[in-house]
Amino acid sequence: MKLVSFSYNGITRIGCIADEQIIDLNLAYRSMLESQGVIRAEQIAEAYIPANMVEFLQGGQQSLQLAKQAIEYVRQNEAALKYKAVHPTSDVKLEAPVLNPGKMICVGHNYREHILEMGRGLPPVPVVFAKFSNTIIGPQDDIPFFPISEQLDYEAEFAFVIGKRARNVSQDQALDYVAGYTIVNDVTYRDLQRRTLQWLQGKTVEGTAPMGPWLVTSDELDDPTGLEVVLTVNGEERQRSNTKNLVFTVAYLVEFLSNLMTLEPGDVILTGTPGGVGVARDPQVFLKDGDVVRIEIDRIGALENRVSKVEGGQ
Amino acid sequence: MKLVSFSYNGITRIGCIADEQIIDLNLAYRSMLESQGVIRAEQIAEAYIPANMVEFLQGGQQSLQLAKQAIEYVRQNEAALKYKAVHPTSDVKLEAPVLNPGKMICVGHNYREHILEMGRGLPPVPVVFAKFSNTIIGPQDDIPFFPISEQLDYEAEFAFVIGKRARNVSQDQALDYVAGYTIVNDVTYRDLQRRTLQWLQGKTVEGTAPMGPWLVTSDELDDPTGLEVVLTVNGEERQRSNTKNLVFTVAYLVEFLSNLMTLEPGDVILTGTPGGVGVARDPQVFLKDGDVVRIEIDRIGALENRVSKVEGGQ
Repeated sequence: MKLVSFSYNGITRIGCIADEQIIDLNLAYRSMLESQGVIRAEQIAEAYIPANMVEFLQGGQQSLQLAKQAIEYVRQNEAALKYKAVHPTSDVKLEAPVLNPGKMICVGHNYREHILEMGRGLPPVPVVFAKFSNTIIGPQDDIPFFPISEQLDYEAEFAFVIGKRARNVSQDQALDYVAGYTIVNDVTYRDLQRRTLQWLQGKTVEGTAPMGPWLVTSDELDDPTGLEVVLTVNGEERQRSNTKNLVFTVAYLVEFLSNLMTLEPGDVILTGTPGGVGVARDPQVFLKDGDVVRIEIDRIGALENRVSKVEGGQ
Repeated sequence: MKLVSFSYNGITRIGCIADEQIIDLNLAYRSMLESQGVIRAEQIAEAYIPANMVEFLQGGQQSLQLAKQAIEYVRQNEAALKYKAVHPTSDVKLEAPVLNPGKMICVGHNYREHILEMGRGLPPVPVVFAKFSNTIIGPQDDIPFFPISEQLDYEAEFAFVIGKRARNVSQDQALDYVAGYTIVNDVTYRDLQRRTLQWLQGKTVEGTAPMGPWLVTSDELDDPTGLEVVLTVNGEERQRSNTKNLVFTVAYLVEFLSNLMTLEPGDVILTGTPGGVGVARDPQVFLKDGDVVRIEIDRIGALENRVSKVEGGQ
């Protein structure tokens, strides 16, 4: 299943997307409950399938299974629905699938072939750093380029989202804690990243985490290895690798991170970027106003955003 | 005013503390509205003075002024109150004043005399890094010492909390965006911090941000300079400085950070730690099970937590 956040009539809700249609999961479940004569259908739908992705993921497998039943109900009863629970994708705006994660954790230096080609040894433990959720924008948003730097750079990243509270989880259990997978562009203001020892200030600038276009649930994408990751700028290939080259796999990262802290449903983990970022090219090349950055990952899809220079202070 | 989060009967709510009493702000306001014959008092109280600190701070000056009226009402009408809106402090547990900030931003290397004594030059821009809110514990909680390291260290920090959405705010306006001040111990697993280039993994371990005991609002503490900061371990002084020694002041940090990102009500910013941390002592000394770490800051109070070794995996 491909889960989305979408805006319709100014309101952002969650849905599943298939065949150019989006089904509003909360309204689908409410409709199903009402058809069964359940009186407090609205409140029960709100409890089990809220319209916010993080809250929905908190419901875990139970909420996911109810959502599947609701989708099935809507497909078989679309003509009879009291609510508008189905939208053509052209009628809505897609937003980032997870809008307000409690944590966004990024992994650095994680593609084997890139580390080796740089003449470095494989790291014994992951380098991890943070972005805050003010960075998140959706698949139909522009990447704002604020006039605080000349060095805006892209980083294609395969990302996973936590689906169940995780603390001290072992690798062999780890994938049970993953709700699904998505694409994030870890946009970076390179000079701000490098002007101090800690990267945060170049990583958490407003609008620097385009995410989407959807979250592919882990029952549909059950094996996160062997997925090709390709990034282009204006159609020209800049990054290409495969998740089989990850030094620290999804399962390893769940174990490693949950040994340090509690991972919560909705937390987003970015697994690192392949070689080929702008700052490492010869000559260096950075993003400019109007550039179109596209990231494709097998079995997920494509995330494409345009860079848009912001004039003035804001 | 000193704002707290507190738990009573298992429920965590916000209040103000004075004279060994805590007034529940939401119930105080609801009581005042009901005494005026307002029918939807519960809903209006929930809208303007919710029982969660971040949500309360989102209400800004308007909510703060209403809270003050409500406190005054309760003081004059305590005997007639329908709800239990006043608690002796001994009946409740104090929690961290801000339990779920969207961001916790930490500043490194910020005390002038300590940087100079280390023979380093003053940094041109702040070093900033992150903690996530899974780290937050309260003034009556123990600091959990997980068996993942032998190097648990303290860092006394003067912290401020954002009270109004801030983007591109100039220094001269900056203090208008500060809700108030508190104390945070930026507890650090020193070897985990240093085993990779990025500090996050040693900084965001579960339970490593004791905070409190309260948030002193900026109308009461209007000048954040000139406050003595002292940390003791088992009564022995380990750190001492004064916020007048901050290289990057509160006002500067609001300008600097809001130039990178939008700061939201409830965001917590830790301003850095003075010299004297355990890892920098000769010989080095780290925290051990049973140690009591106390941080006192002028005009705020004292935050004291005991270190408690966690056995086994959890």
